[in-house]
Amino acid sequence: MGTGQQQPVADVLLQQVLASFRETPDPRLREIMDALVRHLHACAREVGLSGEERSAAVAFLTAVGHMCTDTRQEFELLSDTLGLSSLVETSSSAEGATLQTLTGPFYSAGAPWRETGDSMNEYPLPEDVRAVVRGTVSDRDGNPIADAILDVWQNASNRLYAVQDSAQPAGNLRGRWRTGADGRYEFVTIKPVSYAIPDDGPVGDMLNATARHPWRAAHIHFLVTADGHRGLTTEIFDADSDYLEDDAVFGVARDLIVEFKPQVDRSVMAEFDFILEAA
Amino acid sequence: MGTGQQQPVADVLLQQVLASFRETPDPRLREIMDALVRHLHACAREVGLSGEERSAAVAFLTAVGHMCTDTRQEFELLSDTLGLSSLVETSSSAEGATLQTLTGPFYSAGAPWRETGDSMNEYPLPEDVRAVVRGTVSDRDGNPIADAILDVWQNASNRLYAVQDSAQPAGNLRGRWRTGADGRYEFVTIKPVSYAIPDDGPVGDMLNATARHPWRAAHIHFLVTADGHRGLTTEIFDADSDYLEDDAVFGVARDLIVEFKPQVDRSVMAEFDFILEAA
Repeated sequence: MGTGQQQPVADVLLQQVLASFRETPDPRLREIMDALVRHLHACAREVGLSGEERSAAVAFLTAVGHMCTDTRQEFELLSDTLGLSSLVETSSSAEGATLQTLTGPFYSAGAPWRETGDSMNEYPLPEDVRAVVRGTVSDRDGNPIADAILDVWQNASNRLYAVQDSAQPAGNLRGRWRTGADGRYEFVTIKPVSYAIPDDGPVGDMLNATARHPWRAAHIHFLVTADGHRGLTTEIFDADSDYLEDDAVFGVARDLIVEFKPQVDRSVMAEFDFILEAA
Repeated sequence: MGTGQQQPVADVLLQQVLASFRETPDPRLREIMDALVRHLHACAREVGLSGEERSAAVAFLTAVGHMCTDTRQEFELLSDTLGLSSLVETSSSAEGATLQTLTGPFYSAGAPWRETGDSMNEYPLPEDVRAVVRGTVSDRDGNPIADAILDVWQNASNRLYAVQDSAQPAGNLRGRWRTGADGRYEFVTIKPVSYAIPDDGPVGDMLNATARHPWRAAHIHFLVTADGHRGLTTEIFDADSDYLEDDAVFGVARDLIVEFKPQVDRSVMAEFDFILEAA
């Protein structure tokens, strides 16, 4: 016969579930499962999740799983669009160092080596606005870091990255530069343009059902590495861009927004200084 | 340049994510997404989830999704083994009524109609212990409910349900009975035996990594329906069974445990009274 006392039943249940994980050999896994169960149950209890809603959640997650292939990671998109990816990356940033952000799905190792001042635009398009990007790489004490490597990638004016677009040369808008003895870098690219994350799957359905859009603010990706320092994955965002306040994957932070300032020759120039944490 | 002030960055991020869902047209979906985002972020922040751990979670959920087919629902198993399914069902129970529990994957509509006192054992096995199960169906005021329907299903002594086992007649250990004018029911079956949930997939890997077992306490499933009353999905558990304290899907509640008492003829008898909520 039912007790009908729902609160105690749910409390007893939670204790049973937590107890079931107490013998987990790996203490870190045990810690994570313990927190996961507590927050999962708290969330379901807070909203009074119904059986139909739980079934809908199971069906949604199943559809997300079925959308995942070697070239499409829908659970990464889900993590990104719920802000979890950005949370995890920014939380790993060290005080005083440049903010870590998500890598995203379009990084590919092995970008062409280029010289200071060189352009990475190998596939000019009519919409392109020439941009010079320059600045320094230093440590948290302000010391310039020589021979730091900037691995840079960016989408073209047609909104696609070279890794997505067979029309572009493989090295288009990809490049690696080394800082000089003064810690300075400089390269030529295009003013970044916005693009939409893939929204033809279940995550797109979620965005649609919640009146959200799939657009990212215009940005350039960087992976900055240097001997003796922790690698920095980050982005800089164009202060002119739409979606700075509502980037679909919540990658924008105030300190990563830079002005691409008009120059006399119709090009633009942005300056950004990277600060690395000691390893 | 990074602020390095991690707490504010995570707070700002959370507010951005919550704001992104504020225009959700369906207020219930908005409420659920709001709670989901808050609890997801709180969980990740509480444990200080690393990028590698987030990636491992994405890989695990992807594997769960890929395990799902028309006949195997691995996300249901995940929900069950984290206690979410049981939480949602028991929380829907009305005060004073019998506890609702999960339906599980082995229910199939259309069980044979049987007469009071009939057996549903169509496939006797050497290990079977004959069991009589009887009791009443009533409302919360104690009034017996005539013509209530008990739809009953149970696994055989070989641990399998008829729907899983082509050797068993389709109606084996399945049956529908109606209560008499006095609200009473009675049928013959076998003393229930434990079985393991499917553990050859990612959820089984999770159980293994956390030193958990896949066994369920021995039980009989019921779906009790009656005109003018809310349907009741529940189980009764054998007080002799292993796993009452650590049922793999947390289906056991104290009030659902019954004694299968030995009779003079080596059979056993259990009595259980169901209490339905008015519709």
